[in-house]
Amino acid sequence: MPEKKYMMTPGPTPVPPEVLLAMAEPIIHHRGADFRHAFVECSERLKEVFKTKNDVIMFAASGTGGMDSAVSNINAPGDRVVVHSAGNFGERWAKIAAAYGLDVAHIKEEWGATPDPAKLAAELEKNPAKAVYLTHSETSTGVVADIQKLAAVAKEHGALVVVDCISSLAAIPVETDAWGLDVVVVGSQKALMLPPGLAAVSISDAARAASEEPGRCPSFFLNWPAALKALGNETTAFTPAVTLILGMNVALGMILEEGLETRFDMHKRLGRACRAGIKAMGLELFSPDEDRSAVVTAGKAPEGIDGQKIVGTMRDKYAVQIVGGQGILKGHIFRIGHIGYYDIFDITTALEALELALVDLGADIKRGVAVNSALAAFTE
Amino acid sequence: MPEKKYMMTPGPTPVPPEVLLAMAEPIIHHRGADFRHAFVECSERLKEVFKTKNDVIMFAASGTGGMDSAVSNINAPGDRVVVHSAGNFGERWAKIAAAYGLDVAHIKEEWGATPDPAKLAAELEKNPAKAVYLTHSETSTGVVADIQKLAAVAKEHGALVVVDCISSLAAIPVETDAWGLDVVVVGSQKALMLPPGLAAVSISDAARAASEEPGRCPSFFLNWPAALKALGNETTAFTPAVTLILGMNVALGMILEEGLETRFDMHKRLGRACRAGIKAMGLELFSPDEDRSAVVTAGKAPEGIDGQKIVGTMRDKYAVQIVGGQGILKGHIFRIGHIGYYDIFDITTALEALELALVDLGADIKRGVAVNSALAAFTE
Repeated sequence: MPEKKYMMTPGPTPVPPEVLLAMAEPIIHHRGADFRHAFVECSERLKEVFKTKNDVIMFAASGTGGMDSAVSNINAPGDRVVVHSAGNFGERWAKIAAAYGLDVAHIKEEWGATPDPAKLAAELEKNPAKAVYLTHSETSTGVVADIQKLAAVAKEHGALVVVDCISSLAAIPVETDAWGLDVVVVGSQKALMLPPGLAAVSISDAARAASEEPGRCPSFFLNWPAALKALGNETTAFTPAVTLILGMNVALGMILEEGLETRFDMHKRLGRACRAGIKAMGLELFSPDEDRSAVVTAGKAPEGIDGQKIVGTMRDKYAVQIVGGQGILKGHIFRIGHIGYYDIFDITTALEALELALVDLGADIKRGVAVNSALAAFTE
Repeated sequence: MPEKKYMMTPGPTPVPPEVLLAMAEPIIHHRGADFRHAFVECSERLKEVFKTKNDVIMFAASGTGGMDSAVSNINAPGDRVVVHSAGNFGERWAKIAAAYGLDVAHIKEEWGATPDPAKLAAELEKNPAKAVYLTHSETSTGVVADIQKLAAVAKEHGALVVVDCISSLAAIPVETDAWGLDVVVVGSQKALMLPPGLAAVSISDAARAASEEPGRCPSFFLNWPAALKALGNETTAFTPAVTLILGMNVALGMILEEGLETRFDMHKRLGRACRAGIKAMGLELFSPDEDRSAVVTAGKAPEGIDGQKIVGTMRDKYAVQIVGGQGILKGHIFRIGHIGYYDIFDITTALEALELALVDLGADIKRGVAVNSALAAFTE
């Protein structure tokens, strides 16, 4: 009998059975009326979740494909842009911009830092930029940036604001229009509770105008004007990821029926519970001990214990999948996701497995208190 | 009760229940051992199906994304390339090449023509090219090109050979190595019997070397060197389409277990049956009446009957989904797919619905003979 597995990563996140079953129905044609109905409904629901009146286009691509499109479509080679990063995914913006030959000013804060709006302001005062590339929830560190403030700084200096909300959208508040976010990118496999393979991008009038200027970086599969034109005709430029869109429509329906605020509150309380449990064991947090950072909680591996071994033991011995650190944080931290189809018992399960794994690895932790601390923090 | 629907399009094609169920299992993490095992197995199975020793990379993208990658990764802006087309999908190569600023010589044959190797030779003798872009099965017309001959011509003139095998791979014989195809692109939603959203690309040593030269067209999400490096580490550069890869592994297992030759024979006989049925009604074929063109059969709408109305009536009244003509062929033809998870009773069902729809539309056809003609042609 295969073991019962628990997914506690910040992406992919567990997919609700309703969504899995919707995607397991016999496939339909992407140019027929039944798909068109679901596609249009899904596009409208995305706008509700993005809190925007802007068009939201979908690509058969993972989140990075959406990010790629946000660089190539609004910029011409040589454009000066600012990337403000504090972790692995923030730095990806700089790599994409470099790949397209942009002139990148990279404000590279330490991994784990919370991006400082004053640094962005100082950079933009020195040198204006066509666009500013930001990361809302830095999944590699657990830090959630204050996008409202950062976006305001960028807007003040006349830059387009492009935000990676891949792990934040539907997880924590994202106010695309109210915060003046020109471009918001999301991936399907985070708080939207789907398998990976679908990216969605919201595009403001200003970003759309930029994408229509001559001399943009080349793009074809990820071309915005083609996607926007097709969306206007209630279809896609190329064959869409049919099952993922049908699944997303069901997932968005579930999210909107429950209400975004209810989802946000759940994630906030799951974050509190997760942090409380980790602290109760006597471990230190790496991610901030604050309600805003409610997407993924990063804990520090105790002195002398390899963080990768914690993840490996939890997975191999207890069938609980969390993730370790990326890049320079590899071995030093472990990360537990709590956005999407999670409830408090998932968190306590993860904490129990963490406790057992740490004991297996000889860590000196406080036992038997994590679960109760988590339950208390969740309900308080 | 919802009506029972029949999919008879050349893509998406019906997905076998085994594959649907595999994709409906609880999601797993893309960096864990269980996914890695399936990913490596799937990559190896792809090589068997491609008949190649080359690496085959996968992108979370539809087939067009794979085509896009084959233009941007092996070319530098300004490169002279030849596109030899005879339909909608062939012409797409020219659009992609133009988007990346290549110098495109476009041998644009009439839609429905079979690409003539002599025309390609004449063009390459006049002006050498870095690469030649070809289409194996032109899904818009039903014509299957003689890729072996075309590739030989391109090779003779020192060009890289890039082939869109999106609807041909696993449908009809494709000999990547034996025919010297440097790059073969496939999409998941055709003979591989999966939903759309996954592209696979095989890359010869020469194509790989081209992609590593400096000054390539920009690419990030669809970058080959990054994908190939990750494949060497048994992983992907970015979050893969987890469920589609797991599903593809199951589908490829089914295909290889049955045997590629058996699949090819089935598609050939389904093609014969489909053509026999259409002809028996007194209709004319648009696609060639030949065994090689075994992917999709295109028939001409009878004088005075709109081909789109045939498709619409079949779908709306009889719940049988076929497709009409694209571009200049819209209204003039109808197309029935027969690659992947189809058997003879699917073909006879499609023919029955076609016959009923034509009668509804007032066409003067021969009734009551299509099914028997199809059955006879299938078994002969």
